[in-house]
Amino acid sequence: MVKFKSTFFLLALLITVPVFSQSDEEIIREFYKQSLTNGKSFDWLNYLSNQIGSRLSGSLGAEKAVDWGKEELEKLGLDNVWLQPVMVPKWVRGAKEYAFIESEPGKTTTVNICALGGSVETPALGIKANVVEVHNFEELEALGKDKIEGKIVFYNRPMQADLIQTHEAYGGCVNQRYMGAVEAAKYGAAAVIVRSMNLRLDDLPHTGAMTYNDLPVEQRIPSAAISTNDAELLSTMLELDKNVKFYFKQSCKQLKDVQSYNVIGEITGSEFPNEYMVVGGHLDSWDLGDGSHDDGAGIVQSMEVLRLIKESGIKPKHSIRVILFMNEENGLRGGEKYAEEAEQKGEKHVFALESDSGGFTPRGFSFDCDDANFNMALSWEPLFKPYLIHYFEKGGSGADIGPLKNDNIVLAGLRPDSQRYFDYHHASNDTFDAINKRELELGAATMTSLMYLFDKYGVK
Amino acid sequence: MVKFKSTFFLLALLITVPVFSQSDEEIIREFYKQSLTNGKSFDWLNYLSNQIGSRLSGSLGAEKAVDWGKEELEKLGLDNVWLQPVMVPKWVRGAKEYAFIESEPGKTTTVNICALGGSVETPALGIKANVVEVHNFEELEALGKDKIEGKIVFYNRPMQADLIQTHEAYGGCVNQRYMGAVEAAKYGAAAVIVRSMNLRLDDLPHTGAMTYNDLPVEQRIPSAAISTNDAELLSTMLELDKNVKFYFKQSCKQLKDVQSYNVIGEITGSEFPNEYMVVGGHLDSWDLGDGSHDDGAGIVQSMEVLRLIKESGIKPKHSIRVILFMNEENGLRGGEKYAEEAEQKGEKHVFALESDSGGFTPRGFSFDCDDANFNMALSWEPLFKPYLIHYFEKGGSGADIGPLKNDNIVLAGLRPDSQRYFDYHHASNDTFDAINKRELELGAATMTSLMYLFDKYGVK
Repeated sequence: MVKFKSTFFLLALLITVPVFSQSDEEIIREFYKQSLTNGKSFDWLNYLSNQIGSRLSGSLGAEKAVDWGKEELEKLGLDNVWLQPVMVPKWVRGAKEYAFIESEPGKTTTVNICALGGSVETPALGIKANVVEVHNFEELEALGKDKIEGKIVFYNRPMQADLIQTHEAYGGCVNQRYMGAVEAAKYGAAAVIVRSMNLRLDDLPHTGAMTYNDLPVEQRIPSAAISTNDAELLSTMLELDKNVKFYFKQSCKQLKDVQSYNVIGEITGSEFPNEYMVVGGHLDSWDLGDGSHDDGAGIVQSMEVLRLIKESGIKPKHSIRVILFMNEENGLRGGEKYAEEAEQKGEKHVFALESDSGGFTPRGFSFDCDDANFNMALSWEPLFKPYLIHYFEKGGSGADIGPLKNDNIVLAGLRPDSQRYFDYHHASNDTFDAINKRELELGAATMTSLMYLFDKYGVK
Repeated sequence: MVKFKSTFFLLALLITVPVFSQSDEEIIREFYKQSLTNGKSFDWLNYLSNQIGSRLSGSLGAEKAVDWGKEELEKLGLDNVWLQPVMVPKWVRGAKEYAFIESEPGKTTTVNICALGGSVETPALGIKANVVEVHNFEELEALGKDKIEGKIVFYNRPMQADLIQTHEAYGGCVNQRYMGAVEAAKYGAAAVIVRSMNLRLDDLPHTGAMTYNDLPVEQRIPSAAISTNDAELLSTMLELDKNVKFYFKQSCKQLKDVQSYNVIGEITGSEFPNEYMVVGGHLDSWDLGDGSHDDGAGIVQSMEVLRLIKESGIKPKHSIRVILFMNEENGLRGGEKYAEEAEQKGEKHVFALESDSGGFTPRGFSFDCDDANFNMALSWEPLFKPYLIHYFEKGGSGADIGPLKNDNIVLAGLRPDSQRYFDYHHASNDTFDAINKRELELGAATMTSLMYLFDKYGVK
């Protein structure tokens, strides 16, 4: 039966035609209207950001976010809501980091740093050493052990400003952060400082995951990010005097894995209940801000997809799940766990959509799928044009849904405007005040519309 | 002769091919690269916003902005830079406005208002009266003189949230602000309060132009904008009690017209020096913020168009002018003056481009022209696709260039993302911190590319 929960939809019924004979154009227009005038995403995000706050895997915030997510999904009257247990890493930052540049003994300039996620602590009194600035691993190799041993390696390759899509600029830089310690440790470096992945010049350090791979514990060196302004300063000071020293102290620790959860809600399909279409983002965030853009936005938009479908009275053909994935930032355990159990249970997943690029004005989607399905998506472009959704390209989708990839699934990622994203990414200013309500809501409606179309027309 | 001023362009010459054999794709790529890596727009706007600040026509700020604009254009080495005198209205706000809602004698709640531009002051002790809430002029007419005389008319029709382009929502509301006093005065209203033209709920009143048309001086009633939060509050209180009173006091004044200037810079055309292509924005701003989005952004982007063309070494075929128009906000005298003198001198204008919709991520252009030229512009879409510029539609262009309209000119307006624009428009938060450097620079490069193409291929 077609139900109408909200007055708005009821009104639409009375003055136009019943939902079951509405055109795709009309249904999509209603998704946008509902999201913009009667949506829940902004209020949800306000709560998640301002009442719960940061939620790094294993933290109290992450636990609270799991409880909140389950409770809110239960309120939507879905057919099923549950928690999927998953063991996650627990890394804690400890006391606020401290760092300075020492141009001569006693003459110091304090700079802004933060430990990279996964890094070991410095000795209790901190570490002070000469600095070697490099821009890539080739420079590091060319310098060799002689020039590096005992020193702090300073990776200072900036994000490339003339790339239009900022994610490409990030992709061209982030190996410094993720692999910088492994590479520097090869030559006996004492520690690593990485220029923040930020296109702006400002004072905020941006954290993010790093790895030691299989380095023995005693070879693991402390790694921190430095703000872009301070990276410029350090570089300038080194140019003037190679003997400048850098000091920093951090007390972060990797603890034992702890139990956490993916939060999952489902509307059971009316025709193909055993074929699954999923939408999600990641519930965990870094600890410096409150994770409003990364990825609180994706969480509340994904929840809104199921709410809008439910409220519309449309009975989806396929089973549609919203998944609030745990631990994207430093482990991807949630995404891996979900895919693993889906395979064990033989659950056939045909479509997955992720939002994990911030809550900015949506521009379109990136699709990881075969030509037949991509061409079907392209045929829907005219339906999206009134909403200025124009970007339909092949490419990556999202980290959390990546493990679901096989030959028969369509993976898609929402692509919002990317210009401001790295101003906030993994930094203390990724907070609710950086969210624009309409931009967030437009994203939710855009995702709902794509989910509706894939459900209605099916995956080829 | 092809000149190369910047190292970047010189490098491009050395490692690739001379500019005169570069493809459109290569030249446009270079415009974007230069704007994003070596641009002047952000630094210019920083100065205009933070060192000069607000610049309402006739104010000291406007005078300083004229001097600054001329000086900066002169530094670019254009062929000619001059000031075009124009008489402008001078309206001053006076002391900060004050307002409250009185639910019963002595029980008041302070609310946030600001005088509308052009309004008369209240009596020195302010004005207090009962309130009639309406949503449009039809409701006003239906109420009639009996119910309105001596009362404050409160226009409270909100911007329509489900319109995707916020300028449409503005267009559907702004008659309340512009014509509200004229309409209310017909029925003997004592004053007018208008809900701010803002899609957000917040505490900031948004000013903007209003008119009295030819109303005799004694019938002119004071008019103010109220913040959206306070409009909601007032409406709720009126619902509970129709006898709620509203008090406000403002001491704004319309003074005599004063002399000001359009600032103009020109590169003389190499083939058609007597055919003009212009780009511009408006130099004046409202007085509450510093006018960074409205329209400091358009000013510095327009200046950047000439700078990028000049630096590229390309010799334009047509004479290209940048115009920093004075008095768009409350008179349009600059735009009218420029068009009037152009006609007197018989200057043939073939293309005009305006940026006056904020410094947000550019999405494309709106064209006011015939089909032949519109189709030519459409044929350039592939050149813009790498920069995510996708919006090519017929529609309005810009207020300042509007007076140039005739059958032989192509008018165009830059269309940036509009979602955040009315969060800042005419309010105290339209300040430099709301500007994103990359978004501003992308807009400048997008405008430069369109100017380059129209100059190269000519107007049909």
